[in-house]
Amino acid sequence: MTTRTETDSLGTVEIPAERLWGPQTERARHLFAIGTERFPPLLLRALGQQKWAAAEANARLDELPRHLTDAIQQAAQEIISGQRDADFPLTIWQTGSGTQTNMNANEVIANRANQLLGAKLGARAPVHPNDHVNRGQSSNDSFPTVMHLAAAEAAQRRLKPALETLAASLNARAEEWAGIIKMGRTHLMDAVPVTLGGEFATWARQVIHGVARLDAAMPRLLQLPQGGTAAGTGLNRHPDFDRIFCEVVATRTGLPFTPNPDKSEGMAAHDALLELHGAMNTIAASLMKIGNDIRLLGSGPRAGLAELIVPDDGLSSSIMPGKTNPTQSEALTMVCAQVMGNQVTVTIGASQGHLELNTFKPVIIQAVLQSATLMAEAATSFARHMVDKLEPNHARLAENLAKSLMLATALNPHIGYDRAVAIAKLALHEDLTLRDAAAREGVAGEDFDAWVKPEAMLRP
Amino acid sequence: MTTRTETDSLGTVEIPAERLWGPQTERARHLFAIGTERFPPLLLRALGQQKWAAAEANARLDELPRHLTDAIQQAAQEIISGQRDADFPLTIWQTGSGTQTNMNANEVIANRANQLLGAKLGARAPVHPNDHVNRGQSSNDSFPTVMHLAAAEAAQRRLKPALETLAASLNARAEEWAGIIKMGRTHLMDAVPVTLGGEFATWARQVIHGVARLDAAMPRLLQLPQGGTAAGTGLNRHPDFDRIFCEVVATRTGLPFTPNPDKSEGMAAHDALLELHGAMNTIAASLMKIGNDIRLLGSGPRAGLAELIVPDDGLSSSIMPGKTNPTQSEALTMVCAQVMGNQVTVTIGASQGHLELNTFKPVIIQAVLQSATLMAEAATSFARHMVDKLEPNHARLAENLAKSLMLATALNPHIGYDRAVAIAKLALHEDLTLRDAAAREGVAGEDFDAWVKPEAMLRP
Amino acid sequence: MTTRTETDSLGTVEIPAERLWGPQTERARHLFAIGTERFPPLLLRALGQQKWAAAEANARLDELPRHLTDAIQQAAQEIISGQRDADFPLTIWQTGSGTQTNMNANEVIANRANQLLGAKLGARAPVHPNDHVNRGQSSNDSFPTVMHLAAAEAAQRRLKPALETLAASLNARAEEWAGIIKMGRTHLMDAVPVTLGGEFATWARQVIHGVARLDAAMPRLLQLPQGGTAAGTGLNRHPDFDRIFCEVVATRTGLPFTPNPDKSEGMAAHDALLELHGAMNTIAASLMKIGNDIRLLGSGPRAGLAELIVPDDGLSSSIMPGKTNPTQSEALTMVCAQVMGNQVTVTIGASQGHLELNTFKPVIIQAVLQSATLMAEAATSFARHMVDKLEPNHARLAENLAKSLMLATALNPHIGYDRAVAIAKLALHEDLTLRDAAAREGVAGEDFDAWVKPEAMLRP
Amino acid sequence: MTTRTETDSLGTVEIPAERLWGPQTERARHLFAIGTERFPPLLLRALGQQKWAAAEANARLDELPRHLTDAIQQAAQEIISGQRDADFPLTIWQTGSGTQTNMNANEVIANRANQLLGAKLGARAPVHPNDHVNRGQSSNDSFPTVMHLAAAEAAQRRLKPALETLAASLNARAEEWAGIIKMGRTHLMDAVPVTLGGEFATWARQVIHGVARLDAAMPRLLQLPQGGTAAGTGLNRHPDFDRIFCEVVATRTGLPFTPNPDKSEGMAAHDALLELHGAMNTIAASLMKIGNDIRLLGSGPRAGLAELIVPDDGLSSSIMPGKTNPTQSEALTMVCAQVMGNQVTVTIGASQGHLELNTFKPVIIQAVLQSATLMAEAATSFARHMVDKLEPNHARLAENLAKSLMLATALNPHIGYDRAVAIAKLALHEDLTLRDAAAREGVAGEDFDAWVKPEAMLRP
Repeated sequence: MTTRTETDSLGTVEIPAERLWGPQTERARHLFAIGTERFPPLLLRALGQQKWAAAEANARLDELPRHLTDAIQQAAQEIISGQRDADFPLTIWQTGSGTQTNMNANEVIANRANQLLGAKLGARAPVHPNDHVNRGQSSNDSFPTVMHLAAAEAAQRRLKPALETLAASLNARAEEWAGIIKMGRTHLMDAVPVTLGGEFATWARQVIHGVARLDAAMPRLLQLPQGGTAAGTGLNRHPDFDRIFCEVVATRTGLPFTPNPDKSEGMAAHDALLELHGAMNTIAASLMKIGNDIRLLGSGPRAGLAELIVPDDGLSSSIMPGKTNPTQSEALTMVCAQVMGNQVTVTIGASQGHLELNTFKPVIIQAVLQSATLMAEAATSFARHMVDKLEPNHARLAENLAKSLMLATALNPHIGYDRAVAIAKLALHEDLTLRDAAAREGVAGEDFDAWVKPEAMLRP
Repeated sequence: MTTRTETDSLGTVEIPAERLWGPQTERARHLFAIGTERFPPLLLRALGQQKWAAAEANARLDELPRHLTDAIQQAAQEIISGQRDADFPLTIWQTGSGTQTNMNANEVIANRANQLLGAKLGARAPVHPNDHVNRGQSSNDSFPTVMHLAAAEAAQRRLKPALETLAASLNARAEEWAGIIKMGRTHLMDAVPVTLGGEFATWARQVIHGVARLDAAMPRLLQLPQGGTAAGTGLNRHPDFDRIFCEVVATRTGLPFTPNPDKSEGMAAHDALLELHGAMNTIAASLMKIGNDIRLLGSGPRAGLAELIVPDDGLSSSIMPGKTNPTQSEALTMVCAQVMGNQVTVTIGASQGHLELNTFKPVIIQAVLQSATLMAEAATSFARHMVDKLEPNHARLAENLAKSLMLATALNPHIGYDRAVAIAKLALHEDLTLRDAAAREGVAGEDFDAWVKPEAMLRP
Repeated sequence: MTTRTETDSLGTVEIPAERLWGPQTERARHLFAIGTERFPPLLLRALGQQKWAAAEANARLDELPRHLTDAIQQAAQEIISGQRDADFPLTIWQTGSGTQTNMNANEVIANRANQLLGAKLGARAPVHPNDHVNRGQSSNDSFPTVMHLAAAEAAQRRLKPALETLAASLNARAEEWAGIIKMGRTHLMDAVPVTLGGEFATWARQVIHGVARLDAAMPRLLQLPQGGTAAGTGLNRHPDFDRIFCEVVATRTGLPFTPNPDKSEGMAAHDALLELHGAMNTIAASLMKIGNDIRLLGSGPRAGLAELIVPDDGLSSSIMPGKTNPTQSEALTMVCAQVMGNQVTVTIGASQGHLELNTFKPVIIQAVLQSATLMAEAATSFARHMVDKLEPNHARLAENLAKSLMLATALNPHIGYDRAVAIAKLALHEDLTLRDAAAREGVAGEDFDAWVKPEAMLRP
Repeated sequence: MTTRTETDSLGTVEIPAERLWGPQTERARHLFAIGTERFPPLLLRALGQQKWAAAEANARLDELPRHLTDAIQQAAQEIISGQRDADFPLTIWQTGSGTQTNMNANEVIANRANQLLGAKLGARAPVHPNDHVNRGQSSNDSFPTVMHLAAAEAAQRRLKPALETLAASLNARAEEWAGIIKMGRTHLMDAVPVTLGGEFATWARQVIHGVARLDAAMPRLLQLPQGGTAAGTGLNRHPDFDRIFCEVVATRTGLPFTPNPDKSEGMAAHDALLELHGAMNTIAASLMKIGNDIRLLGSGPRAGLAELIVPDDGLSSSIMPGKTNPTQSEALTMVCAQVMGNQVTVTIGASQGHLELNTFKPVIIQAVLQSATLMAEAATSFARHMVDKLEPNHARLAENLAKSLMLATALNPHIGYDRAVAIAKLALHEDLTLRDAAAREGVAGEDFDAWVKPEAMLRP
């Protein structure tokens, strides 16, 4: 591997010749030989956006010459478009402020901009990584701004549409099967009748509430700490920098970001990201229940509840021939377990800042983005490969319903709870139909037939 | 202990003579000899409210004679006012639907109402626990309704005012100390100057955001599942029961409860309670940071940061004489650790329902109410006994500020980042003042004095 | 309420006349108006033991006159036996070192000992709460010692026997039902045959492993920090105090406690308690699965898997007459959700100490003792009221088994996996018996009968 | 991209021509478009080991011809050595049994073995993925066996040596600095003197206990479920297969694996992996404290505790020139937050199996391996880049010690606790030295000097 030599204020470093990063990044590569977890594309993209918008704001405020700005923005745009991924070699296990990744961006953009302007890599001029690319900024405010940009995009542009897709799939089945009466179950035990469509409608409602939960977290997430610079003070930036920066990113992203009136709140703490993750944790609980319920109703094909027919996905057991499994429920519920663990990671990270700076930033944003994208992709997969392909097992649904003892509930208003209990117990213990048991307890057949109608038990 | 004999549809039971509960409660006492955790007064109060309002709705709909209603409501009011606490002997470790506690209320109210109406305990007439007290209801919808009532009251009437109290205390110090310039710290290391008031203002803002987070969870929490009866169907209740019930509880509680349009969503799942707890978990992270930061700034009294003077609370070490400790920070952060654990309990509970019924109801509501009341009381205690009594250590604040090397940040725009680094390193390694180090690096004294002014570094 | 006046080095306080506590406790009552969670009897009992043994060690080392020792020990014994519970009014939400509860004990014992010696309450002589009762001790070492004593007793004397009881119940059914062949299920889907007894044997093994897990945590738990006094130094105690103290508590408790060779390790951190809770968290996962599996097999009674008959416990639905629910599974799994939340509480508490002292002691030990006792009582209840009373539903077990398509697995070695797949798929899609489907695919009936025998598929 | 066509019992699939996987893998690639998380090399390596050993056991038992065995083993060895990583395209978000990854291995090995034997890809002969590579196995027993192999290697070969490295680094400083007396701190407040070496010794002890905790989990982890085949029965495998398999893997790995006597226990549940993760969670709590304590002692360089000098790592703030941060503490504590979250993921996954199979296998093993490797690498990095390079700040250590008021503790045995309190309070409030305050309270100077000697306060 050939290298070039770069020098910064802290010394001289050998850097792989073909790479655009600089000395801070290179040193960090060696200081943090920990893990393989890299920031996802969503984060790098937001990092590019942040640098583009900061340059724009500085240019508009005459803090940065336009020709340097143009070069910086072209380089930033290359990061946004994904062309510079290979120039971001660090894992998330670095400084807790994300400084090394911010400096990585500063160095890559400075080198690339200098290259575009005809200078060579490592020149630190005409574009300097700190004085120009990072102008009016600190890692302290830039990196949490990047976190908010990426998290808002993940929530609004990834997870939300995926939840809407899943809700639509569930609602389609809810409408389709609204007329299928079936055994309801409480405590996993036979209960009064419900409809198959109603079960899907309830799941859909849980998912749609999930969308509302994401939205409820937005007001705090849309406030950006950019402009806080060192320790939240705003030192070394133009007084209008934060306002113009937010206008630029709002325009470019389509999300209504505004300056956090207390910059320090968004740097010293990450409550807004924990709040968002709390919403996602609730969504995970919803999806866990839906995944579980569907595999439960699909259990069988013969000796389970078997009310739903799980789609044959072309996969099978490695030993039991022809076995079809609820693989999508399994992938989905595993994702939920991950999200629930991430909730603890984010909680600990968010609670552990000291004074002017929280230094668990990388692990927090990694968990937030992982939770959002995993649930988005798993929900989409579950909608397409599971919900859309389920079929009701009409025979079994009818058979289970017919057996129900809890139809006795309809007797309560007519004969009182205590007599109804006696009838249900008699039917169970002597293996009678409910009608026969009721007859033995003195309820006339025609009364029974008039009172006990599953189709009339579905609503008040 | 003398007993009386009561009989229900499932058999005959001996019950302590002076107690108002009935056979279902008595059986449950023996079946669940687990733990000592009882439902808190907030829950019993909500249970009384729910029974009162259900009776009222039934009466208005001619489902219940007014004279029975009056007796039921008088008995329910006794539960609300706390006079019947001793008649609720069960722990939360019972059926996961809360059925035994719902039946406990049905039995106590029936017995008490019958007593008021001149009948004897155990008569099951004229007021029957199921046919009258539980009329138009199931544990399946009543108990989660009680959960929502109690949780909404805990959040809005307990936690929210306590957070407002704490925020007011913090804001008072923020204003008072807005002019005290001090060392800022990032990564726990000396950074650029900030103000002591600014630190308190940021903490206050975190707390006030906590109030907004509670409010953001309300739309789902205010929807009640009452009316779902068995398995969410609404079987055996009047079509208008849910609407009238909600009007009654809204009037009596002052909180705008409405019927959940999909009753099953509030019975089969408890996402709304998990969402609320997610907000409280975020609040716990905020309070953890505040408690930690204040004990850090108060560390000493001589060999710590010692910028704040922790109040002498009249407690001390059992061995080190005269030692004053940040006891309120410790109580507060322990409460936060409890809330963070409760978050997992509620997450697991909420995700684990099966089909038409979640059966982790008691442990969920217990955790929600514990988190809300503990944080309310700890925040109040922290405001009164810590925040209101803190004093700044002016001498130390000034001394720490004077030492700062990070005032060098103000040099960046004038001499560039790289030269500023050299000056700061020189000062550190040769133990110079920053001004002297700057002079050695060729910065004139008058320039240094003009550029480096802590009071000018606090804003853009 | 009448009061008496007591004075200590920090001032004068009014104390309820009939109470034995002193000024430190009284002040703490007012400073910490947080929550209702008191230390459980197990902790108070261990506190009494610690004071008894400390007095004994001091007496043997001539650090304390025997007549004062006798009075102190009599008072400590009253705490151990539960007579002084009402004199411990503080909740766990206090100083994070447990100092107030240690001082509560010092004050109660001093007052009671003085009373026994003819002095009046508040005299602080002849027995002084710090100089005598707390002699050679600090809260810093005494309270964590109490935590270890209580946790070891909870694990070894409460949880362990309860797990052994549950394992015995499960093993009894395992033996009883070893011959019942039934449908196995993987992915909740029909799989090859297993035995009902085998399912119970596996659950029993999980529980017995739980006992081994508790034991594996003991080596660290049995090391006591007593003797560390202030900050782990051992200042102000006799060099042999720790050794004799441990001998005394080992003798009195029957558990082989020894001095921690690095006292500070047991004061600054609580890894040993977190390790124990990690074992209990694993046990909770085992119990969660067992509780879930049993309610799943017991689902029905008619439209579920219905292979087990859940015992009729005399409880019922408040609306669905005669409904029997798996209430013991629900209580047990709720307890498990609590333990899993406690795991996070203990993890956060244990990780958050600073330098020479962890100050999350009360919340840590509260969670550890709650987890141990709740699981002990829930496991016992589950054994007695669920496992011991389950019945197999022979008809359903046989019916489910007969339907199985996965008996096709036995064909693999004879006709290859790919042909076996074809047969299973054919049977499923055309609703054939496996034998008929095999015949259509060219497997002779006699071969099928020779190869496919459920009773031969249960082992290699 | 050119493709080849492969056909299995479930249909025909186009597969990228240069890839060795088969139809099951290819279908899974499209069915699970979820996430980017791949199984780490440790898992693929263990998967190769498992297939190698299974082939060997089958060969020795005459279940597999030696020439097929040789080809299978050569292919498996290529997986072990890392040459086939690109042929494992699936993420962990798949079937919860890991079946697709087991089939991926079966297909890759069959294709590669056939290639070695002169057949073409997709031939399914002479080596068939199920009939030969998977012979005597199911995913149900093979995949959890792979989990145990990988987890045991991660714990014993990665994490354990890393902890030993860290402990050695800490112990080296403990010895080096055993004579440096310094201020101790409890509740973060000034306490009695301790030694700097003692602080490092305590941290070292925590780390060494971590090694013991890993070892304590081994007895259950070393029991392999291999041989359980379908649903734990052992169907279709030779009676001696499990024994020989374990002998082979024990020999090849050097770890004493044995057959789990109840195979189902290791397939239906993953308590052993949760137990291991519980140990790692405890280690994370230890490392969190160590990382926190060191950054606290290193805070400054001027306005913090500043007792340790954090190494200059060549990284800096992007805005504050020359700022050195405790970056290694930050990376380490972020890793700990991840592990603590993983604990919840594994807990939920392990508790959620149904009957004969736990279907959260991939997410469980992913979390276990991530926790082990991250802590191993972070601990190593922390040892090398932080602990080994720390320096004591002698001047500050001495200055802090000299200020201490808690030296008053040494007065207790001579003048009683209450008088010592008065002296300490006087010194604090009037800003006196302790000696002067004592004099004012009547303690002679020579007595004070004789009683209060920091160097004599470090031990009993």
